[in-house]
Amino acid sequence: MQQYEWDYDRHQRTNIGEAVYCESKSVEQIQLILNQHIQNQANVLLTRLSAEQFQLLDADIQQKLDYCAISKTAILQSKSAHLADVSPFFANFKVGIITAGTSDIAVASEVARTLSFNQIHSEMICDVGVAGIHRLLNKIDNIRQFPVLIACAGMEGALFSVLTGLTHAPVIAVPTSVGYGVSKGGKTALESALASCAPGITTVNIDNGFGAACAAIKLAHMCKQWSQ
Amino acid sequence: MQQYEWDYDRHQRTNIGEAVYCESKSVEQIQLILNQHIQNQANVLLTRLSAEQFQLLDADIQQKLDYCAISKTAILQSKSAHLADVSPFFANFKVGIITAGTSDIAVASEVARTLSFNQIHSEMICDVGVAGIHRLLNKIDNIRQFPVLIACAGMEGALFSVLTGLTHAPVIAVPTSVGYGVSKGGKTALESALASCAPGITTVNIDNGFGAACAAIKLAHMCKQWSQ
Amino acid sequence: MQQYEWDYDRHQRTNIGEAVYCESKSVEQIQLILNQHIQNQANVLLTRLSAEQFQLLDADIQQKLDYCAISKTAILQSKSAHLADVSPFFANFKVGIITAGTSDIAVASEVARTLSFNQIHSEMICDVGVAGIHRLLNKIDNIRQFPVLIACAGMEGALFSVLTGLTHAPVIAVPTSVGYGVSKGGKTALESALASCAPGITTVNIDNGFGAACAAIKLAHMCKQWSQ
Amino acid sequence: MQQYEWDYDRHQRTNIGEAVYCESKSVEQIQLILNQHIQNQANVLLTRLSAEQFQLLDADIQQKLDYCAISKTAILQSKSAHLADVSPFFANFKVGIITAGTSDIAVASEVARTLSFNQIHSEMICDVGVAGIHRLLNKIDNIRQFPVLIACAGMEGALFSVLTGLTHAPVIAVPTSVGYGVSKGGKTALESALASCAPGITTVNIDNGFGAACAAIKLAHMCKQWSQ
Amino acid sequence: MQQYEWDYDRHQRTNIGEAVYCESKSVEQIQLILNQHIQNQANVLLTRLSAEQFQLLDADIQQKLDYCAISKTAILQSKSAHLADVSPFFANFKVGIITAGTSDIAVASEVARTLSFNQIHSEMICDVGVAGIHRLLNKIDNIRQFPVLIACAGMEGALFSVLTGLTHAPVIAVPTSVGYGVSKGGKTALESALASCAPGITTVNIDNGFGAACAAIKLAHMCKQWSQ
Amino acid sequence: MQQYEWDYDRHQRTNIGEAVYCESKSVEQIQLILNQHIQNQANVLLTRLSAEQFQLLDADIQQKLDYCAISKTAILQSKSAHLADVSPFFANFKVGIITAGTSDIAVASEVARTLSFNQIHSEMICDVGVAGIHRLLNKIDNIRQFPVLIACAGMEGALFSVLTGLTHAPVIAVPTSVGYGVSKGGKTALESALASCAPGITTVNIDNGFGAACAAIKLAHMCKQWSQ
Amino acid sequence: MQQYEWDYDRHQRTNIGEAVYCESKSVEQIQLILNQHIQNQANVLLTRLSAEQFQLLDADIQQKLDYCAISKTAILQSKSAHLADVSPFFANFKVGIITAGTSDIAVASEVARTLSFNQIHSEMICDVGVAGIHRLLNKIDNIRQFPVLIACAGMEGALFSVLTGLTHAPVIAVPTSVGYGVSKGGKTALESALASCAPGITTVNIDNGFGAACAAIKLAHMCKQWSQ
Amino acid sequence: MQQYEWDYDRHQRTNIGEAVYCESKSVEQIQLILNQHIQNQANVLLTRLSAEQFQLLDADIQQKLDYCAISKTAILQSKSAHLADVSPFFANFKVGIITAGTSDIAVASEVARTLSFNQIHSEMICDVGVAGIHRLLNKIDNIRQFPVLIACAGMEGALFSVLTGLTHAPVIAVPTSVGYGVSKGGKTALESALASCAPGITTVNIDNGFGAACAAIKLAHMCKQWSQ
Repeated sequence: MQQYEWDYDRHQRTNIGEAVYCESKSVEQIQLILNQHIQNQANVLLTRLSAEQFQLLDADIQQKLDYCAISKTAILQSKSAHLADVSPFFANFKVGIITAGTSDIAVASEVARTLSFNQIHSEMICDVGVAGIHRLLNKIDNIRQFPVLIACAGMEGALFSVLTGLTHAPVIAVPTSVGYGVSKGGKTALESALASCAPGITTVNIDNGFGAACAAIKLAHMCKQWSQ
Repeated sequence: MQQYEWDYDRHQRTNIGEAVYCESKSVEQIQLILNQHIQNQANVLLTRLSAEQFQLLDADIQQKLDYCAISKTAILQSKSAHLADVSPFFANFKVGIITAGTSDIAVASEVARTLSFNQIHSEMICDVGVAGIHRLLNKIDNIRQFPVLIACAGMEGALFSVLTGLTHAPVIAVPTSVGYGVSKGGKTALESALASCAPGITTVNIDNGFGAACAAIKLAHMCKQWSQ
Repeated sequence: MQQYEWDYDRHQRTNIGEAVYCESKSVEQIQLILNQHIQNQANVLLTRLSAEQFQLLDADIQQKLDYCAISKTAILQSKSAHLADVSPFFANFKVGIITAGTSDIAVASEVARTLSFNQIHSEMICDVGVAGIHRLLNKIDNIRQFPVLIACAGMEGALFSVLTGLTHAPVIAVPTSVGYGVSKGGKTALESALASCAPGITTVNIDNGFGAACAAIKLAHMCKQWSQ
Repeated sequence: MQQYEWDYDRHQRTNIGEAVYCESKSVEQIQLILNQHIQNQANVLLTRLSAEQFQLLDADIQQKLDYCAISKTAILQSKSAHLADVSPFFANFKVGIITAGTSDIAVASEVARTLSFNQIHSEMICDVGVAGIHRLLNKIDNIRQFPVLIACAGMEGALFSVLTGLTHAPVIAVPTSVGYGVSKGGKTALESALASCAPGITTVNIDNGFGAACAAIKLAHMCKQWSQ
Repeated sequence: MQQYEWDYDRHQRTNIGEAVYCESKSVEQIQLILNQHIQNQANVLLTRLSAEQFQLLDADIQQKLDYCAISKTAILQSKSAHLADVSPFFANFKVGIITAGTSDIAVASEVARTLSFNQIHSEMICDVGVAGIHRLLNKIDNIRQFPVLIACAGMEGALFSVLTGLTHAPVIAVPTSVGYGVSKGGKTALESALASCAPGITTVNIDNGFGAACAAIKLAHMCKQWSQ
Repeated sequence: MQQYEWDYDRHQRTNIGEAVYCESKSVEQIQLILNQHIQNQANVLLTRLSAEQFQLLDADIQQKLDYCAISKTAILQSKSAHLADVSPFFANFKVGIITAGTSDIAVASEVARTLSFNQIHSEMICDVGVAGIHRLLNKIDNIRQFPVLIACAGMEGALFSVLTGLTHAPVIAVPTSVGYGVSKGGKTALESALASCAPGITTVNIDNGFGAACAAIKLAHMCKQWSQ
Repeated sequence: MQQYEWDYDRHQRTNIGEAVYCESKSVEQIQLILNQHIQNQANVLLTRLSAEQFQLLDADIQQKLDYCAISKTAILQSKSAHLADVSPFFANFKVGIITAGTSDIAVASEVARTLSFNQIHSEMICDVGVAGIHRLLNKIDNIRQFPVLIACAGMEGALFSVLTGLTHAPVIAVPTSVGYGVSKGGKTALESALASCAPGITTVNIDNGFGAACAAIKLAHMCKQWSQ
Repeated sequence: MQQYEWDYDRHQRTNIGEAVYCESKSVEQIQLILNQHIQNQANVLLTRLSAEQFQLLDADIQQKLDYCAISKTAILQSKSAHLADVSPFFANFKVGIITAGTSDIAVASEVARTLSFNQIHSEMICDVGVAGIHRLLNKIDNIRQFPVLIACAGMEGALFSVLTGLTHAPVIAVPTSVGYGVSKGGKTALESALASCAPGITTVNIDNGFGAACAAIKLAHMCKQWSQ
C-alpha cells in the first residue's frame, strides 16, 4: 500500500491543523494515515469517522484516539503537539455556536471539536429556531457578546437571516441536512444562507461544521495579529 | 378561429369568479375571449396581461377594461355581474397582505386585485422583511387582527416562518421571483415556505398572487358559511 | 446533555400544540425531550417516530405513549392537558381527508392523528384517484360536505386539480413520495399542486401530513372565531 | 457553403416525410436546404420556422412555401410529391387532437400541420382542461370515436391522466411550455405525463407537436397494414 | 382496515386489465387487495412486488399467484377470467421487445408479463446496443416484422434513435435505470428518448415496462378494431 | 404610493450602512426611496442599478448620486453622514480583492465600492487564475499581506482552493456568473467554493460582491474591537 | 483601467496558443487586451466574439483581425508569430470533425478555426446523424482515416456512441446546445457523451469547440513527440 | 435463459478488449456471460463487480478470475488471448495516473487495471491535491514525463485545471464521487472538469476509470500507428 502524502506544514501555511476526512476512506487507509502521524509525533483531527469505522481500527490505535460519537470526530494528540504554545490572546476569544434545533447538535459538535483541536474556545446555544422568535430574542444579549457566530440550521434556514440582522459579529452559516421533501439533504437551508436578505452572511457546504470552524480559526488568528 | 370554451359556472362550483391567464395567449385569443364575455354580459379577471398586450387590444375593448399596470391585471365588469349580491358578512372580513420588501409589491397587488374582483377586502403591509426583525415586531399587533394572512417574499423567504410563528391566522405564502444567483426565479423562497419549521404554512406557486387570493376567497366563504 | 429549549406557549401563540419531529434526532434526544414534557405535565405529538426508534425508548416511556406505526406518530397525553376545554363549535367541524390511492394512506394517517391530537375531527375517503374518474364523481356529494379538504396524492398528483375544480371548500394538497422514475421522491406531485390550472389550491411539503393538518387547525380556529 | 446531406429515403424507411427543424439554423442554411429540395422536386416540412426567419427568405422561395404563423410551419410541395398515392384506408382515419386550454393551440396546430403534410386527417377539440371536468365529460363521446388521441397540455398536465382513464384509444401526450414558476418551460407537464397513474400514456418532448404527429402517422400506417 | 376501492371496469373502459403497483404498499394492504379480487373472482396483475414482499404473503395466497422474480410481477388468475374470449386477430400480432443490454432484461420482462396477462404475444431480442451497431443491423430484418416495438435501454439510450430511424413500426421507448454518474436513475436515457433526432418515438417513465406494455395493448386493440 | 419602511438603524445594529437592491424595483420605487433618504439626510448605497435605470431617474437626483457603470452601484452621500467618524484603526486595514480573470472585474468592483461606502480600504489584484499558476505564485507574497481576502472567480472556480491553501487570512469566495454550458449562471463556481478541499473558505451567493464586502466589513469591525 | 495579466508562456507550457474568451468581457476590455498583444507582437485567438462586439472595436483593430462570423472567432496574427516553425510531422496529420446536423456547424467551425490557429489541419464531415444511420455508414471508411475525431452533436447526441463503436481513433465529443424541451441548452447531449455505452469517448463542455480542438492539439503534439 | 450476444470483434474495431459492466447484472447473468467466454477461450474484463457478487459466483469460476477488491475488477485470461502479440512500442509508453487524495485511489485502480488488461503500462502518483499546491509542484517534473495523464479527483476537482495548466500532455479527467453536500455524487468535480479555465481537458463520467483508460488506450494505439 502506498504512503500517504500528507500536507505537513499546513498549519504554518494556513493556521489550520492537519485533518483527515474519513467518509470515503477504507479502514486500512485510515490506519495507514494514523500510523504515519504517530511515527512522526504529529497531531491530527479525523472527521466523519463513523462508529463502525472506529470500531474496526486496531485496539491500540483506538486507545490513542479521543473519539466523540456525536460529532464523529477523533483527535490524535501525539507528543510534540504543534499547538502547545497557545497565545494568551485566545483566552478570552470564544466562538458562539448557535443551533436552530436539537437535530443540528451533531453538526454543531463537529464545529466545537474542530475549534478545540485548534485551541479555540467556544460555547453552544441551542434551540433558538425562529418558529418561536422569542427564544432567540431572549438570548440575544448573550449572543451579541461573541466576536464571531457560527449558526447551524436545516429545513428552511430562516435563523441565518434573523440572527445576522440582529448582530454586529460576522455570521458563518452551516446549513444542515435536517429536513425532508424539498429540503432533504440540506439544499434549501444552504440556498437560504446564500440568498439571505441580511447582508454579511457567508456560508460553507452542507453539514460542514469542520469548514466553518476553520474559517473561524482564520478569523481568530487574523484578529490576534491585528491586536498586537 | 375557434370558440373559447369557458368555464361558465366556475363561480357557482368553486366560489371563484372566471379568470383568464394571458401570458401565453396571443392578442387575438385574448380579444376573442373578451368579446365572448361581453356578449354574455359576464365578468372576467385577466391576469398577467402585459402593458404591451393591453396596448394592442382594440380601443373599445381597452375602454371597457379596468387595467392596472403594476399587477398586470384587467377587470371586465359587464352589466349582469355575478357578484352583485355580496353578503354583509364580508364587510368586516379583511385579508392581510404582508410583503418582505418593495420588490414584492407587484405580486401583492395581484393578490389585492383578485380579492377585490371577488368582493373581498384587503390591506397591504409592506417592508417587514426579517433582516430588521423590529419592523415586523412593531406591526405584529395590527397583523394579528386579520383572519387570514397572505405573505409575499422572495430571496430566502424567511418572513414566512417568522410570521407564522407569531400568529394564529392561517398564513398563505406567495414566494416571489425576486432574487439572483441561487434564488433566481423564486425557487429558494418557495422551498423555504415548504420546508418551514413553523407549522401550518401553505404555499402557492412562485409569483402566484392570483392563486393565493383564490385560496383566501375559499377560506372566506367557508368562514361565512359556518358563521350562520 | 443539554436541556431542550421547547416552545412552551406555541399553542397560545399559534393554535397548534407542541410537536417534535423525530427523524433526525437520536433516541437519547427524544427521551430527554419526553422526560421534560412528563415533568412539566405537558402534551406533545411526536412525528416521524420510526418503529425502531420507538422500540429503543425506555419501557416506561413507551407505556406512556399512544403509538401508531402506520402514521409513525406518538402522542404523550400528560395530566394537565392544554386541550381539555374544547369548544362545542368543533363538534360538527370535520376535515375531509381524500387519498388518490392505497399508498397514500400512511401520510393521510399523519394528517388524521395530528388533527385528533389538536381536537379536530376528520374522515378519510380513499382510492379516488383520477385514472378512474367515476370513483371520485361517485363520492363528490359526500366530499362537498366538508368545510376543508386535505388531498393526499403521489405520482402525477392530478387529483388535486380535479378535486379543486369540483368543490367550494379550501383544498390543501399533500404531495406524497409515492412514485418512481421522474416522480421518485414526490417532486412531480408537488409541482402538480403548485402549477395546477384549478385556482385556490395551496400546498405543503412532500409527505407533510402534519403541516397540512396544522393549516386546517388554523382554519378551523379562524372559522370558530368568526362564527361568534 | 457545404451541401446539406439530407435523408432522401426517410419516408420509405420510416413512413415519415422529410422535415427540417429550423430553430437553430441560419437563414442561409434554410435557404440552401430548400433549394436542394426544389431542385430535386422533393417535398419538405419546415418546423419552428419563425415569422422573422420566414420574412428573410428570398421572395421566390417564400412564394413556394405554404406558411402558417401559429404553428410556425412551412410546407414545400414540389411537383413529384412522394405522397401523391394516398391509400383509401386513410379517408376515415382521423386523429383527435385535444387541448387543455387556448394557450396550447399553437402546439396543437403543429400536430395538425404535420399530419396534413403526411396525408393524415385530424380534428381539434379545445379547452377541455380538468379544472372544469364537465367540459371534458360533455365531449367524451365524441372523443371516444378517434382511433388515436394526441393531448396537448401545459401547467400540471392533469388532462393526460383523466383522458387516458376514460378512453380505449392510445393517448400520446404533448406537454406544452405553458406555465410559470415551477412549471415554467413545461417540465411539470412532461413529468405528469410520465408519472401518470393512468396506464398506457406515452409522451414526447415538451412542445414537440411534430414528434407526436409522427408517432400517430406510424400508428396509422401500422393500422392500415394490419387491416389488409 | 379500509376497503380497497378498485377500478372494476377499467378493462372495459380502457382495454387494460386491473393491475396494482406494490412498491409503496404494505404487505397487509397487498393481501387485502388480493383477497378482495379472489372473493370477486377477478384477475389482477401485481407489479413491483419484491421477493421479500411475496415471501411475506400468506402461504395460500402465494400458491394462487404466478410469481416471476426477474420482472417482480405476480398474476392472479381467478376463475371467471375477463380475458377468456380472445380475438383470433391477436394470434398473429406479436410485439417486439428490444433490449440494449443484459441489464435491461428485468424491465423487458415486465413488458412481456404485462402483455401476456392481457393476452398479447411478444418476442424479446436482446443485446443489440449501438456500441456495436452490427449487432442491431444483423437482426434488423427480423425486427422489421413486428407491428410495434418496445425498446429498453439505459445509460445514454442511443438505441432509441437508431432503431426508430431504421423501422416503420411505432417505437415505444422504456428508459431503464441502468447507469451511474450522470445517468444514475435513468434520466439520461429518458431525455435521450425525448430529445431524439429520429421522429416518431414516444416514451414512458423510467423502468415503466408496465406502461409501455399498456400502450402497446391499446395499439393492438385499435389495430384490431380497424381491421374489421 | 406607499412609504418605504427602511431599516434606519441597520448600521448601528449590524455595522453595515443602508443599501438598496435595485434589480427588481421600478424607477418610481427607487426614486421614492432616494427622496426619503434625501429628506432624512441619510446615506445609502444602491446596488444593481443598471445604466438604463439610472438614466430614467430625475436629473436632480442623478446629480446627487455618484454612479459607477462597471459595478452598477450608486452612492448617495447626504449631509449628516453616519460614517463620518471613522476610526484610525481602519487606516492600515486593507481588504485584498483577487480576481481569476478580466471578466470578474465587474463583480470585484461591486466589492470595492461597497467597502469604500462603508469606509474600508481595498486593493484589487487581477488575472491570477490557476490555468497559469505562476501568475498567482508570483504575487503570493503581496497577497499574504492582506488581513482578509475576497476572491472573485467564475467557470470552475479553482482559484478559491489554491488561494486558500496558500494563505493565513480568511478567504471569502464570490462565485461569478462567468461561464457557459454547465457553468452558465455561476453554479459550478459556487459549488467549487462550497466543496473545496482547502479548509476555511466561506462563500456568498453568485455575483454577490455586495455581500462579500459586508462580511469583510463585519470582520474589520470585529478586528478593531478586539485590538482595543 | 488595469493591465491585463496574460499568460505569456502558455504555448510553451501547454502546446496551446494564447486565446481569450470574449463573451463576458466588455468591448473596452477586449480592446485593451488586443492592444497589449499588438504591442508585444504576440498572436492571439479570440473566441465567442459576437458580430456586435466586433463591430464596436476600433476600425484599425478590426482590420488587423481575421474575423469569422459563423464560429464567432477572430485571429490576430502579429509579426513574430510563435507558431512559425511548424513541424513537417503535421503535414499529414488531419483532425476529422464530424457533425450530426447542419445546426452543429457553428460549433464545428470553432473547432476548425482553433486547430488552424494552432497549425493543425482538419476536415469537416457533416449531416451524419444517426436517425438515418446509412449516412454515417456510407462515409465510415473515410472517417476511419483520421487519427483523431471530434464529433459535434446536440439533441440526444446518439452520434457519439455509434461513431465510437465503429472506429479505432480517439473520439472527443462536443455536445452542442441544439435542442429544446428537455435537451434545451445541450445537457442531454452532454450526458449522452458521458454515459455512453461505447468505451473510450471523452467530452468537453457544451458548445466548447475551442476546448475540443485544444485537446486534439495536445494529442497531435504527443503523437509527434513519440514518432521521433 | 437467453444467450448473451457479445461484441466479439470489438477489439479489432475499436482497440478495446471486451469488458462487462456488472453493477446492474444478476449473478446468474454474470455467470452465463463468463461461461460463454470460457467456452470461446476469450478474455474479458469485469468492472464494478462487488465482493458480494464475486463471492456468489461458482467456485471454479472464481478460481479462473484475477479479482481485485479495491478496483472491483476481475480479469478472465482464457487460453487464446487476443492481446498476446504486444507491440514493442508499448514498452516505454506509460500512462500517468494522478490522484488528488487517498479517497480517489479506488477509481485510479480501475484505471490501472483496465490499462493492464489492455497491455498498457501505468504509474500512479497520489495525494497531490491543490489545497497544498507544493505537493503537486514538487512532483511536476516527474509528471511531465508521461505521454498522457489521467487525473482522478472528487470534491471541487480543482486539480484538473492546475495540472492541465502545467503540462503538455493530454489530460483526461475522472471526476470521483468523493464529497458530500453539494458535491455528493461527484457532480461538482465533473462540472469543474467541463468548465475548466485551462484549455484541453477532456472528461469522462463520474467514477468512470474504465472509460478514461479506454480513451488512453485509443491514444496509445494512435500514437503507435503514427510512430511507424
